[in-house]
Amino acid sequence: MREPSVQPRVIIIGGGFGGLYAAKALASHPVAVTLIDRKNHHTFQPLLYQVALSVLSPGEIASPLRRILRRAHNIRVILGEVISFDTQARRVLLRDTSSLPYDYLIVAAGARHDYFGNDEWEAAAPGLKTIEDAVQIRRQLLLAFECAERTAILTGHRKPPTFAVIGGGPTGVELAGAIADLARLVLAKDFKTIDTRKARVLLFEGASRVLFTYTKQSSRRAAEQLSELGVEVHVDSRVTAVEPGRIRVKDAWIPVDVALWATGVAASPLGRALGVETDPAGRVKIEADLSVPGHPEIFVIGDMATLVDDTGRQVPGLAAAATQQGQTAAQNVLCDLRGAKRKRYRYHDRGIMATIGHYRAVAQFGSREFSGIFAWLLWSLVHVFLLIGFRNRVTVMAQWIWAFLTNSGSSPLITEYQSPDAENADPPATPSELA
Amino acid sequence: MREPSVQPRVIIIGGGFGGLYAAKALASHPVAVTLIDRKNHHTFQPLLYQVALSVLSPGEIASPLRRILRRAHNIRVILGEVISFDTQARRVLLRDTSSLPYDYLIVAAGARHDYFGNDEWEAAAPGLKTIEDAVQIRRQLLLAFECAERTAILTGHRKPPTFAVIGGGPTGVELAGAIADLARLVLAKDFKTIDTRKARVLLFEGASRVLFTYTKQSSRRAAEQLSELGVEVHVDSRVTAVEPGRIRVKDAWIPVDVALWATGVAASPLGRALGVETDPAGRVKIEADLSVPGHPEIFVIGDMATLVDDTGRQVPGLAAAATQQGQTAAQNVLCDLRGAKRKRYRYHDRGIMATIGHYRAVAQFGSREFSGIFAWLLWSLVHVFLLIGFRNRVTVMAQWIWAFLTNSGSSPLITEYQSPDAENADPPATPSELA
Repeated sequence: MREPSVQPRVIIIGGGFGGLYAAKALASHPVAVTLIDRKNHHTFQPLLYQVALSVLSPGEIASPLRRILRRAHNIRVILGEVISFDTQARRVLLRDTSSLPYDYLIVAAGARHDYFGNDEWEAAAPGLKTIEDAVQIRRQLLLAFECAERTAILTGHRKPPTFAVIGGGPTGVELAGAIADLARLVLAKDFKTIDTRKARVLLFEGASRVLFTYTKQSSRRAAEQLSELGVEVHVDSRVTAVEPGRIRVKDAWIPVDVALWATGVAASPLGRALGVETDPAGRVKIEADLSVPGHPEIFVIGDMATLVDDTGRQVPGLAAAATQQGQTAAQNVLCDLRGAKRKRYRYHDRGIMATIGHYRAVAQFGSREFSGIFAWLLWSLVHVFLLIGFRNRVTVMAQWIWAFLTNSGSSPLITEYQSPDAENADPPATPSELA
Repeated sequence: MREPSVQPRVIIIGGGFGGLYAAKALASHPVAVTLIDRKNHHTFQPLLYQVALSVLSPGEIASPLRRILRRAHNIRVILGEVISFDTQARRVLLRDTSSLPYDYLIVAAGARHDYFGNDEWEAAAPGLKTIEDAVQIRRQLLLAFECAERTAILTGHRKPPTFAVIGGGPTGVELAGAIADLARLVLAKDFKTIDTRKARVLLFEGASRVLFTYTKQSSRRAAEQLSELGVEVHVDSRVTAVEPGRIRVKDAWIPVDVALWATGVAASPLGRALGVETDPAGRVKIEADLSVPGHPEIFVIGDMATLVDDTGRQVPGLAAAATQQGQTAAQNVLCDLRGAKRKRYRYHDRGIMATIGHYRAVAQFGSREFSGIFAWLLWSLVHVFLLIGFRNRVTVMAQWIWAFLTNSGSSPLITEYQSPDAENADPPATPSELA
């Protein structure tokens, strides 16, 4: 970086879609950028569930942030955790008690799952937001089959596992479909004592239909395609309690081997740490230029922000919106430097799509709707080309073609550490001692 | 499996090279085989260090055991931990208190690192035996660079990290060379504030030369090639204590950011659990037919066993020897069934080789010795084709060609969980809060 002291200092918090695309848009411009993230990598979240289902491996959907930004000489990357701000002195405060000054701040720390005030449910029904979540969920899914096989061999009692996905949004639908595929196709020939195809996959949605943000027709097609895969879809079925080994749906307890949480989103607590107005989900109410009211030097973007744009529509919590907002926030910083008027952000709808297992999907582009194998091919094409990094693109394509030809996932590896607690648990309740 | 009750029951413990090749040799024969392992996958250990150095990802050197053996209808796989034996009743005892009967038992549970009675050193200087070890070591190596970069940005104090590899055998030499490559080539352009090429890599060997089991000429060439990469090689330098952040060599404490343990091997405690004679390292003294004295129905093979074969040579602790022994043990089971005389095992030397970073290696085939890029090409060729599974072979080849062309590793991802302890540690001593 040349003469950093005379260039405006821009701090970006978070290396997700919003933060990464803000950084890319600032590359080679006369600003000194510092990107701070708690992870060393960007995660391509739309394909996380494929890591959880062992179709892809973590390296195929994640790239180190410094590798992505290595050619941008005005951008440096810090692996660290921001815990608060001094908006008067214009400094961000890190967990290790150090702090960094900024002239512009772009906060893009994303969201995590919300358990409606029942944080203890998380241990029994993990959500899927990070690579670590995906590896942990993969481990739970595979261990459930391993345990059932072991019990069948040792006791003669054959009982394939039961899986519950809580939440019928795109993530829940994709998870349920992919678990059904795992049981029906990927693992069927690997297990010789249990019949993995008899595993039950239950999907619970509190609203009256799955994919509630899609059209009714897409919802219906999604539910039909899930049923074709053997997924038992329950709508109007709010989950009211979660415990290890069982969940309560309305008033009935249902025994399950693995429960996954795919509903409820809470913005990063950094929004509230800014000391500005937030909605009940912790999202910061931002201006049309994506800045925070009263602080034109602070931008909040992506899942942390809430905005009704000039078209009168609530900007959705999608990777596409975060990407666009990152670019707009960066452009608005550059507008200031040039003395130009800032841009007002408007969401450009690129369509929405969700896959449902092998060859099935629903997709909506404006008023056009697709489902079935055509939607699935569209989905595959779009996601391969969206993936960051040429190398990942080629590898993922190769993986998919292979999986397509052989009906097998990549490597269903169980590689996680045992947590010290799990190690001492009773064998039947938690199979962790096996790993 | 057809009529399992009338077929002899063979239990194999361990899915490493010995156990896996014993299972393969028993496939489709009239025996009912049960393979038990604590992991669900076979690990191609010779390439583990490449996972630690983020050249390869875990899925590229590991395959699920049930996937490898899916076509063998007489073999079933149990994910479980054997803790002891009842050799009178001929049963193996599992941790979950269940037990399984056998007619033949093949014990191939391998070895782990030995800290010479100082097990507390393991936390400060981990060894490399499993995928989990490799991911953990990768995390430590990358975090050391991340920490140095962060400190440089926040305090202006530039100090690239220091790495110590303890043990100058093949694993130590490969690790040291690969760490030097990581610092010199892979990460050099990713870090903009510190100069990763200035990282120090120290190799400590207690004996008078590295690669002590190789010829003196190979040892000298290995030491020269390590020096070319900037590795500081210290022979006659026994490490006498290990603490977080420093190691004691002879009488001097040396500060290090990451220490890795690559010396000392202790056989699995299952050898002693058999109640038969073992050597000080816990290895079972076996007969020429690989069975245990007094128990012709029990075979112990691989790193758990010690044997001087008919050529008068101690069988070395190599993957090649374990593979051969697995096949011989299986053949001897089948000899019994046919009423034929058992085979006496003799080690077939297929050569030994060790890589030293990019383009450098030493190799010995009988009396022929090679070093430099020719040895490295030989090494690459041999290891790609040894890798289990067609798919891994192609992927690894593609990875290597890519790494060869671009001098980059795959994806230096830090993806490990924080241990609950590390989370509360002080930031400067352990960088775990960053991950």
